[in-house]
Amino acid sequence: MDSLNIRTLFLALSTKKLPTGMLPPDDFTTYSLLRFVDSVLRGIGQVMLQNNSYTGVIFLAGIFYNSIILGCAALLGGIASTAMAMLLGAERSSVNAGLFGFNGVLVGIAILYFLEPNILTWGYVIIAAACSTVIMSALLNLLSTWSIPALTAPFVITTLLFILACARLGRLQTTDILPTAGLPSTATVEGVVTSSTLIEGLFNGVAQVFFQGSLVTGVFFVVGLLVSSRLACSAALIGSFIGMLVAWGMGADEVAIRSGAFGFNSVLTAIVFAGLIVANMASVTYSALAVITTAVVFAAMSAALEPLGMPALTSPFVLVVWLFLLASPQFKNLKKAEPQ
Amino acid sequence: MDSLNIRTLFLALSTKKLPTGMLPPDDFTTYSLLRFVDSVLRGIGQVMLQNNSYTGVIFLAGIFYNSIILGCAALLGGIASTAMAMLLGAERSSVNAGLFGFNGVLVGIAILYFLEPNILTWGYVIIAAACSTVIMSALLNLLSTWSIPALTAPFVITTLLFILACARLGRLQTTDILPTAGLPSTATVEGVVTSSTLIEGLFNGVAQVFFQGSLVTGVFFVVGLLVSSRLACSAALIGSFIGMLVAWGMGADEVAIRSGAFGFNSVLTAIVFAGLIVANMASVTYSALAVITTAVVFAAMSAALEPLGMPALTSPFVLVVWLFLLASPQFKNLKKAEPQ
Amino acid sequence: MDSLNIRTLFLALSTKKLPTGMLPPDDFTTYSLLRFVDSVLRGIGQVMLQNNSYTGVIFLAGIFYNSIILGCAALLGGIASTAMAMLLGAERSSVNAGLFGFNGVLVGIAILYFLEPNILTWGYVIIAAACSTVIMSALLNLLSTWSIPALTAPFVITTLLFILACARLGRLQTTDILPTAGLPSTATVEGVVTSSTLIEGLFNGVAQVFFQGSLVTGVFFVVGLLVSSRLACSAALIGSFIGMLVAWGMGADEVAIRSGAFGFNSVLTAIVFAGLIVANMASVTYSALAVITTAVVFAAMSAALEPLGMPALTSPFVLVVWLFLLASPQFKNLKKAEPQ
Repeated sequence: MDSLNIRTLFLALSTKKLPTGMLPPDDFTTYSLLRFVDSVLRGIGQVMLQNNSYTGVIFLAGIFYNSIILGCAALLGGIASTAMAMLLGAERSSVNAGLFGFNGVLVGIAILYFLEPNILTWGYVIIAAACSTVIMSALLNLLSTWSIPALTAPFVITTLLFILACARLGRLQTTDILPTAGLPSTATVEGVVTSSTLIEGLFNGVAQVFFQGSLVTGVFFVVGLLVSSRLACSAALIGSFIGMLVAWGMGADEVAIRSGAFGFNSVLTAIVFAGLIVANMASVTYSALAVITTAVVFAAMSAALEPLGMPALTSPFVLVVWLFLLASPQFKNLKKAEPQ
Repeated sequence: MDSLNIRTLFLALSTKKLPTGMLPPDDFTTYSLLRFVDSVLRGIGQVMLQNNSYTGVIFLAGIFYNSIILGCAALLGGIASTAMAMLLGAERSSVNAGLFGFNGVLVGIAILYFLEPNILTWGYVIIAAACSTVIMSALLNLLSTWSIPALTAPFVITTLLFILACARLGRLQTTDILPTAGLPSTATVEGVVTSSTLIEGLFNGVAQVFFQGSLVTGVFFVVGLLVSSRLACSAALIGSFIGMLVAWGMGADEVAIRSGAFGFNSVLTAIVFAGLIVANMASVTYSALAVITTAVVFAAMSAALEPLGMPALTSPFVLVVWLFLLASPQFKNLKKAEPQ
Repeated sequence: MDSLNIRTLFLALSTKKLPTGMLPPDDFTTYSLLRFVDSVLRGIGQVMLQNNSYTGVIFLAGIFYNSIILGCAALLGGIASTAMAMLLGAERSSVNAGLFGFNGVLVGIAILYFLEPNILTWGYVIIAAACSTVIMSALLNLLSTWSIPALTAPFVITTLLFILACARLGRLQTTDILPTAGLPSTATVEGVVTSSTLIEGLFNGVAQVFFQGSLVTGVFFVVGLLVSSRLACSAALIGSFIGMLVAWGMGADEVAIRSGAFGFNSVLTAIVFAGLIVANMASVTYSALAVITTAVVFAAMSAALEPLGMPALTSPFVLVVWLFLLASPQFKNLKKAEPQ
């Protein structure tokens, strides 16, 4: 048990679990079609920080199970962002590991989730996904000053900008799923949380990482994680559960709890901090505080974006993990877990 | 009179005025109870940048004079954030100097000021205060790139997130003091400013640093500052006065001027720039511009947060001081005052 | 054709085209009146990234042609911000090149455009312009970590703060031009775009960089650019045209397209990326994506600021160019154009 550098851990989590795909990711000899397919699938896996193309296939199957259109959007987004990275000459090992794909995948799903599908919308996905590649590079450069990862920030920034723009662009119509702009007001406790709320909420929380409100899709995702890492899989379920518990305890709406809305950000935070959970008192407290805070910050970001009629997306995950990673070097009692 | 580094001055202001407490702050041999009490009290003093536990006692007395519940909240916040820093293993000299306490103190007061007190609310204070410690460390790391201090930014970020979240959490009810969310509109000149407005406003401006709308509490705080530093004490009063004057001259609401709303951010800015006020033309202009701008930015932030129904807190102070400190190394005519 | 550093290009664009003014900008012997006039005029030219006092004169003439009051405001803002930089002792070569003037010029115009003129308003211009000098220095320091330029960010920050503040300050009244605060909603395609829309929109897009809704003023500005750089002049027109095309294709309001609202940010982005446009596939794609994204981000920022009743100003340009410059070092296929 050595003194911690959480960021090393994070990097380990997102890059080490090889060989876990159709091609060895350190083979840079060619940009064959198979290599490209492998990169896009790893990109889908990277949405939950898994550099594993088999995981990507299972995730994709889960999305297609729930919605063919969103499955296509995920693929188009992943292809456009990865292709843009190759055209511009981004570092090959990062492209191969799917690091230029996962934001595009999410951008694609988000645009087709929140906008009515038409020719222009699909073109919009391509432009937005290409932008997400640029923003990913920009954040890699910006954040390298503090050695923290970009996480899904490029997805959040790109999606908010491109969906907000539709308020001025008459040929891009939003769906009913997008929240209506309003002013935040006081909440009241609504609905009764039952065991069915908790079971659905647990798996929906995992599914919502990809905007999927489907228990079965959630199960697909859990299996996909299991293929890549037992630790990440357990962390995801625990994260979803804690997020749900915090929301329940503080009186969130039962419908929101059941939908997994309070879970998906905590899922991602828990995966990042998974390596800490088994260690000492300080580390367990730190990880638990991060996961709990993520659920509170989800409530906050959801309210903060209400006047714009925008969803919080994974901004709570990004914000909390950035803060907790930035802070970690100053806390000498944080330890990382044994070999795992 | 030597060439200026305002940040040095700032650090001097916040760390040098020792020995000013029950224990010498450089005694790291033990974390005794007395040491802990001293750290929490210094944290209360650090809210106005005074590393002085006697000042902390007087400030605390001023808060208890006005409201027992807010006094308890200040203590709980200070204790939780300081204890979290010790649990995680933050640098001991910073903990001893109260640097991990002042944001927790303010977070505690803010939560009990804006939320109805119940068991959950007090638990919420503990989680939020612990978070403020993490955010403090995160900002120390982030801002070390430019050698600028975190100021009360951890308090502002934590409080906005935790209060905003209540719009989604039915068991945490806000008080009537929290502004109602609305859209900013045109102001008109309302009420007549009299000498009683100015006298109350002057001391309320100092009191509002801790959310206390009480002239007597303001006097407590002025005495607390005087115990620690005559310079800081004068600066606080001058800052409150200038903030009030700017608001009056530009036609702010008399009720707001009387309440000290336009003063408390300027108080803090003036304390930071206090060392410059007696020096040359450029430095006086610079300090004056900072204090005046703080009052304008208070008006701006107050309007900017209106659609969220959130108060500006000390965000104007943080924003203006960050900008003026970041800019200062490039201005070679800025000089710092004689020995002071 | 050598490997690219876009920032070098940017710096080249904004500093090299000398000797292009009344005084050689590297003559630091004196701060004569002529030197001061030259610096202020270069500041006006720098609004479109031209370090050229003749360009500044032509731009100023274009503004005065459209509005005498806005011409005076531009001058006062430029004078106040440049004088403040000299008083504080900013680096002389930057002051001479107009780098402390262009934000003040824009701040001056914006305040007189959005606020009713009275004595207080003109005083407000002086304080705000002086602030823009401080914010410019602050951003130069902040952004030097990544070697990216401040662009017009000091103008955007200063103007948003000082105009927002008027919602609390009764003696500063806004004009009807300022958008009313509201909640963003769905857009519909309104009006029919004709060739007159496109011709007016093309030149208004250039004119709107200085808030001027006048075709003739747009022609003045195009001539001013031509005097300084044929490349910048072509880029400005192409940028305005692409911005307009994107807006038209995605169904923006005809009135907004005609007014140049979708053009002026793209004009500035295109000038920055001008040097890339003639080079290889990756570079052309990159520049085109930047200009297209700028138009989308204008729509987004305009909606994002709607609840505050604030205009987007040049925030889309700043955001997009910052992201694309930050990202560029990681893309090895980007090449810059031949000698130009």
